[in-house]
Amino acid sequence: MRAGTPVEAATGDPAWLQAMLDAEAALARAQARLGTLPASAADAIGSAARAGRLDTRALALAARETANPVVGLVRALTAAVAAEDPAAAEYVHRGSTSQDILDTGSMLVAARTLRLVLADLHRTAGALARLAREHRDTPMAGRTLTLHAVPTTFGLKAAGWRQLVLQSAERLERVLDHGLPVALGGAAGTLAGYLEYAKVDGGVPGHALGDYLDRLTAAFAEETGLARPPLPWHALRTPVADLAAALAHTAAALGKFAVDVQVLARTEVAEACEPAPAGRGASSAMPHKRNPVLATLIRSAALQVPVLAAGLTQCLTTEDERSGGAWHAEWLLLRECLRLTGGAAHTAVELAEGLTVRPERMRANLDLTGSQVVTERIAAVLAPRIGRAEARRCLTRASALADREGRPLAGILGGLPELRGVFAEGELASLLDPEQYTGAAGPLVDRALDGRPDGGDVPGAGRWAPG
Amino acid sequence: MRAGTPVEAATGDPAWLQAMLDAEAALARAQARLGTLPASAADAIGSAARAGRLDTRALALAARETANPVVGLVRALTAAVAAEDPAAAEYVHRGSTSQDILDTGSMLVAARTLRLVLADLHRTAGALARLAREHRDTPMAGRTLTLHAVPTTFGLKAAGWRQLVLQSAERLERVLDHGLPVALGGAAGTLAGYLEYAKVDGGVPGHALGDYLDRLTAAFAEETGLARPPLPWHALRTPVADLAAALAHTAAALGKFAVDVQVLARTEVAEACEPAPAGRGASSAMPHKRNPVLATLIRSAALQVPVLAAGLTQCLTTEDERSGGAWHAEWLLLRECLRLTGGAAHTAVELAEGLTVRPERMRANLDLTGSQVVTERIAAVLAPRIGRAEARRCLTRASALADREGRPLAGILGGLPELRGVFAEGELASLLDPEQYTGAAGPLVDRALDGRPDGGDVPGAGRWAPG
Amino acid sequence: MRAGTPVEAATGDPAWLQAMLDAEAALARAQARLGTLPASAADAIGSAARAGRLDTRALALAARETANPVVGLVRALTAAVAAEDPAAAEYVHRGSTSQDILDTGSMLVAARTLRLVLADLHRTAGALARLAREHRDTPMAGRTLTLHAVPTTFGLKAAGWRQLVLQSAERLERVLDHGLPVALGGAAGTLAGYLEYAKVDGGVPGHALGDYLDRLTAAFAEETGLARPPLPWHALRTPVADLAAALAHTAAALGKFAVDVQVLARTEVAEACEPAPAGRGASSAMPHKRNPVLATLIRSAALQVPVLAAGLTQCLTTEDERSGGAWHAEWLLLRECLRLTGGAAHTAVELAEGLTVRPERMRANLDLTGSQVVTERIAAVLAPRIGRAEARRCLTRASALADREGRPLAGILGGLPELRGVFAEGELASLLDPEQYTGAAGPLVDRALDGRPDGGDVPGAGRWAPG
Amino acid sequence: MRAGTPVEAATGDPAWLQAMLDAEAALARAQARLGTLPASAADAIGSAARAGRLDTRALALAARETANPVVGLVRALTAAVAAEDPAAAEYVHRGSTSQDILDTGSMLVAARTLRLVLADLHRTAGALARLAREHRDTPMAGRTLTLHAVPTTFGLKAAGWRQLVLQSAERLERVLDHGLPVALGGAAGTLAGYLEYAKVDGGVPGHALGDYLDRLTAAFAEETGLARPPLPWHALRTPVADLAAALAHTAAALGKFAVDVQVLARTEVAEACEPAPAGRGASSAMPHKRNPVLATLIRSAALQVPVLAAGLTQCLTTEDERSGGAWHAEWLLLRECLRLTGGAAHTAVELAEGLTVRPERMRANLDLTGSQVVTERIAAVLAPRIGRAEARRCLTRASALADREGRPLAGILGGLPELRGVFAEGELASLLDPEQYTGAAGPLVDRALDGRPDGGDVPGAGRWAPG
Repeated sequence: MRAGTPVEAATGDPAWLQAMLDAEAALARAQARLGTLPASAADAIGSAARAGRLDTRALALAARETANPVVGLVRALTAAVAAEDPAAAEYVHRGSTSQDILDTGSMLVAARTLRLVLADLHRTAGALARLAREHRDTPMAGRTLTLHAVPTTFGLKAAGWRQLVLQSAERLERVLDHGLPVALGGAAGTLAGYLEYAKVDGGVPGHALGDYLDRLTAAFAEETGLARPPLPWHALRTPVADLAAALAHTAAALGKFAVDVQVLARTEVAEACEPAPAGRGASSAMPHKRNPVLATLIRSAALQVPVLAAGLTQCLTTEDERSGGAWHAEWLLLRECLRLTGGAAHTAVELAEGLTVRPERMRANLDLTGSQVVTERIAAVLAPRIGRAEARRCLTRASALADREGRPLAGILGGLPELRGVFAEGELASLLDPEQYTGAAGPLVDRALDGRPDGGDVPGAGRWAPG
Repeated sequence: MRAGTPVEAATGDPAWLQAMLDAEAALARAQARLGTLPASAADAIGSAARAGRLDTRALALAARETANPVVGLVRALTAAVAAEDPAAAEYVHRGSTSQDILDTGSMLVAARTLRLVLADLHRTAGALARLAREHRDTPMAGRTLTLHAVPTTFGLKAAGWRQLVLQSAERLERVLDHGLPVALGGAAGTLAGYLEYAKVDGGVPGHALGDYLDRLTAAFAEETGLARPPLPWHALRTPVADLAAALAHTAAALGKFAVDVQVLARTEVAEACEPAPAGRGASSAMPHKRNPVLATLIRSAALQVPVLAAGLTQCLTTEDERSGGAWHAEWLLLRECLRLTGGAAHTAVELAEGLTVRPERMRANLDLTGSQVVTERIAAVLAPRIGRAEARRCLTRASALADREGRPLAGILGGLPELRGVFAEGELASLLDPEQYTGAAGPLVDRALDGRPDGGDVPGAGRWAPG
Repeated sequence: MRAGTPVEAATGDPAWLQAMLDAEAALARAQARLGTLPASAADAIGSAARAGRLDTRALALAARETANPVVGLVRALTAAVAAEDPAAAEYVHRGSTSQDILDTGSMLVAARTLRLVLADLHRTAGALARLAREHRDTPMAGRTLTLHAVPTTFGLKAAGWRQLVLQSAERLERVLDHGLPVALGGAAGTLAGYLEYAKVDGGVPGHALGDYLDRLTAAFAEETGLARPPLPWHALRTPVADLAAALAHTAAALGKFAVDVQVLARTEVAEACEPAPAGRGASSAMPHKRNPVLATLIRSAALQVPVLAAGLTQCLTTEDERSGGAWHAEWLLLRECLRLTGGAAHTAVELAEGLTVRPERMRANLDLTGSQVVTERIAAVLAPRIGRAEARRCLTRASALADREGRPLAGILGGLPELRGVFAEGELASLLDPEQYTGAAGPLVDRALDGRPDGGDVPGAGRWAPG
Repeated sequence: MRAGTPVEAATGDPAWLQAMLDAEAALARAQARLGTLPASAADAIGSAARAGRLDTRALALAARETANPVVGLVRALTAAVAAEDPAAAEYVHRGSTSQDILDTGSMLVAARTLRLVLADLHRTAGALARLAREHRDTPMAGRTLTLHAVPTTFGLKAAGWRQLVLQSAERLERVLDHGLPVALGGAAGTLAGYLEYAKVDGGVPGHALGDYLDRLTAAFAEETGLARPPLPWHALRTPVADLAAALAHTAAALGKFAVDVQVLARTEVAEACEPAPAGRGASSAMPHKRNPVLATLIRSAALQVPVLAAGLTQCLTTEDERSGGAWHAEWLLLRECLRLTGGAAHTAVELAEGLTVRPERMRANLDLTGSQVVTERIAAVLAPRIGRAEARRCLTRASALADREGRPLAGILGGLPELRGVFAEGELASLLDPEQYTGAAGPLVDRALDGRPDGGDVPGAGRWAPG
């Protein structure tokens, strides 16, 4: 799913390791800015904090002993710093705790991955906007419960996909902008270790510790580019839960695009097909097939991410100042949520930009029911003329007859004695034309493309406001 | 869980039925405001739209035939209107479709329930703020991976619970304010039926249909108090997914409060206990027990809602203009998410307002490890004096010795030859006092109570801003 | 979903209440058989244990006080017994604990519900066997990744549905036969209360308590018809987890049947349709529609039950001798799993027995790709004649040409210079006939109908044995 | 979690690749045994089918093009065979399809992993049996809803953990023995490709194809050691769902062991602690801590596997002869279920074999409530003497008084006027001794260790039979 996509590198073992090292280096720089750590030590730590120098597999093995990878990482980083500058080695991970480093590292990985995902979502939204505009008035069957209902347009369908994609993007942006904080709490969320070293190393007096706390958090946030949390979040896991919710929305929303494409791609429907460069979608058995592999990959992610995200949400229910298990359960789940969603987002770009639309097939399918797709309209027109109940009875009977005899509805309706004289000359033929019964599809597309996807929190010309 | 709580009535069968009837009545009023439906018909429909008049069980049975309850509801409502005003009966559900009524009804139920949940969350937050303030400096053991780590304060723990509760409230408020839209799409999301009747009933000319669409949506939103959606959302299920995510956050966050209380209530810990009016928490077998039933009920909801919500998120991946199954799967899941979360929120009020805190037990437990709870501090003080590595070695050895011999750390450290002369007179005793090592717990409580829970989207004096 | 189906009554509040009362009565009878409780008291308890006499709503309200409904139930039952026979009232719930009664009651509800579900599954399997036999040789397109792949038969598809249904039935039968035990552990799983009363009431001497324990468990199991557990299962929740897994298999497997029917029912495919008695599948807006409501309801359950069941499986991870929350989380989840699965099973009967199959539409769709559906076969025939790679190249090229020019494959292949003379006279036409390329579909149907669905644990003529 | 455990190698990319190559080689051998493929070709394919020779990353990238890794794998394998024996290359993947190879490969990986998991579970069960036997009569507090309820024994607790472990093992063994079949269906489950090549390559006549189908399946099953499926299971995913259910049971059941250990390890409880070789459980901040990392890792898996497994169960609901997405969603979920469960099982061995039990702490904690832990017993003894209701009233009052005044129950009960003369001399002291109120804990341990964990399907001396 993720192989070869941008998120692959952003979420791999080296990336995660580097992010934790970046957290260590940023912490040292923050402490140096506040004068409790020598600038030269911060430099030495920054120079040594390179994932390429460490043995990933040895760290993974060591992690089993301590239930997290940071203890081993600190040991390795300390050794690397000491090799260059023994005095600086004293300052590695100064006052810190495993969870501060691991959580800050996770937030860095998340931030880097979300930027890639967002870029892909915006490209997808752009491609879908083009499809919506181009096919604003391309009629096709609206389908409900698998059956033709009333006509719609392909433009409206594409506009709907785009809206979902933009809603996902807004949710991810909200998380990216405000929801990914540094972790800075020390052993149990009181920052006691940081403060103790500030006293010891920097002579920060007791009465100034509240101020130091604020400045250290601010400096760490600036050095990492992450947000400042309202409280240390060791055991207050809203950032992870929010991230999970936004990723689940994204994967599941892209899944809507995918399952719709799959319906349109069915051999019998054939209203759209995936881009097919040479070799794409090849089958190992059947030379003729060009499988809709992009939609398949996206839908596969859509099936998985929401359940993985549920596991992450459950981790909000975490006991004590650090859970023995609920914290640890987040790591794999979060990584796979990022990867699957990132892979799906990247795949969606290709699908949206390369989708082949077949208006002629849409038109042909619209005719399959012999005008039954507009019975709603006939019912509306007949209601004031012969009463709603009677109109419904007529049409139900006529539809059943049309099905049974395989005849178009036009002829049957024209021949019903109870409808004699009810329609004006030529009126019925016009009413039965599905292309003339697409309702507000066109204006809806216009409004969707002008405005913003949410009724929520951004002003926009065409936006629909709260009621 | 929900029995006897405010959400019980708000989410019961009669409430759901009434909400759908409210949607029908509001639709009629909206159409009347636009002149396409006689005002008298809107009045008649409004008068007849009373859940008490309908046979709930008969509707449930009929719903199996049509896979939704609206077809039967419209039939029953039409009959009820016809009994009073036969002409008005023609205008029931005019141009509409089952999904518009059911979805609008669900949003009304959700809105009404969220208001109850929010009131409870704010009461809980208030009670927790009082606890945090009162116990700002009450020391207790910070626990990580089930073991005493370093000291913290009960005030900081309560401030953390409060933050989660307020974060849940913000997420629910965001949904309530902008995320619960009317459903208005007609049979397949094009509003064609509404527009056709507008032409037929109100003479609205073809060129004015775009404008009519905007005005009808606005009127329907006003009549229901719900938001205007950017597009008909038959198959764009963000409102339900967002609602699910906010409810899952709430239940799981309250679960954090509950599992912490459970730890504190354990017979061996005994640092807090639930309010116990007569009969509360009684056991059928053991006269002495007063079970922590409030925390139990809350945790039970916390275990369930995230998985139910995952099912709702998956329903975003819905094919066509209306899914044959994914839409239908939302109903039970949404109802139970609302009920369980509402029950948990109501229970949390009682728990927070009545929680008994035992500072003396907290202090006694802090002494259990014989000062080991402050080894981090000793390590910090020793680091510049004898080097970090050597300090760590000393303390690991001393801790092991303390465990083995059951002696307090003070005596052991004082006797170590390598530490002779390292501490000033009386320094060690002061360093080993856990009450003096609560770090920034106090200032953190102050900041949490002054500010707003999120770094996110609201200005606030003490709020921590993005980095 | 469940309204009007047999599981509705079997899982309603009165049924659950009655099952707990049945557990109390059976416990009293078991104790009476062992001579530690007067027979007259057992009779009085049995007479009073009628759900109709109790106030369900009052019990639900009281349950909030004690986090379970049994404390209030025992109080009410004791009062009811005392009204008739005050001496007998002393013996209500003798030595027992809430969890024994609630869990035994749940197992009774589960057993009663599973019998209903199994009856429906066997009816469905019977109907599917008839479809498989009748359509053993009805050719249709095999579809993979939404596209026509190679031909198959409808008989094979129906045989596959039947296999899943029988596999679900086997899993449920295994649970019903061995997996639903009485709960008998007393306050913390040691049966101490039962034994103490046996000493007090029946003079059972200390050395005989091991034997008494065995006999009491056996008697309670006989009186309820449930299994004897290997250990008290207060905190060993395999029975619930196994039940959840079997229900999830059932709902999801029926979902396979449903989504296949939905594909076949699509307007464009039209190879099968649901039974449509008058009114069934009616739309509130569109007179012509006959929605596939049965498949819709089943699929809706299939989406929900697996996530609910995951919650139940998680409840295996339960602390202590009784969890404060994990036990309580089971109740709603289990009830809804039973209801949704039961509703789906009942709906599947109607779908299987009434499904209309359209062989002529299957044949017509098979021709849609102009013989591309048999390219695999041509490749096989060509492989030894011109080499596999060359064969594949030819066919890929020919298929692309056929698509581009809209021509049948026959003409294109016949005209390829590299295939000149490769086929015998008339051979190509015969090879391209999809009806002649259904592989082993027929024999597979025969074997499936003769044998048993699992390779597992039952002997059967046509069963496929372990390798 | 899995790093350094046996399952790491068994589930890695190379293992998965090799399993698919093993499937290709076994298929060739099976076809050779039936005479439709030259023995020399089967040998050449077997020789070339070495994962080490292939470029894993290139295959992963290619997999995105075809939505599965087999198309690229076949291409690479064909090239490798051709390099040695060009004629043999014609026979690679003869008549086959991607899904047959991938699914058979997955079943091989599962079988290999389950054997490792089972070995670990049996070691854990052995260690727990030793603990149960050794501590058959070690009294400790039974805890319900976090509070002391009545006494139990540590032996009974360990016997319960063992029962869950053995129940998991039985479920995995059932899957391993019967539930992991070869996949052999060809492009759409009819085996048409295999049969066509059998005709072309081996001259198998049409009337013998049914027999050929049986023999090919049997030979493929023998060559792989997997089971023979009743029908091709391309779209009948019971094997994966059953595997998921058994793994979820295992992880969640081990989680019960872990959370119980966590309670016992709490600083305040201190009744058990994890094995602690040097460095194990070290904290990056606190020299004194020896974190219970084994229980932490196990619990972390227990939180995750059930939700991942729910995703796999949902994949039963898969449309057509091969789903575009539901099949693909299985791969990651299955792999992580295997890994997490395997890691947890391996970790549990270490935890069970090294657990330190502290009977003296158990005894000390039993005294914490001053005999309230036996109020149930006093109630039983008093019931026939003063009536049950009166007994309960006395004890509730006495317990409350004991709590309020911090006095032991003995003195309070002795002083109650209404109990004057009710107890014989010395009787009360004996009744209040918690060690004498462990009920049937001892006999239950005996029966559990003698018998089999399930009431189900295996005979066993001490097994409790169905009621």
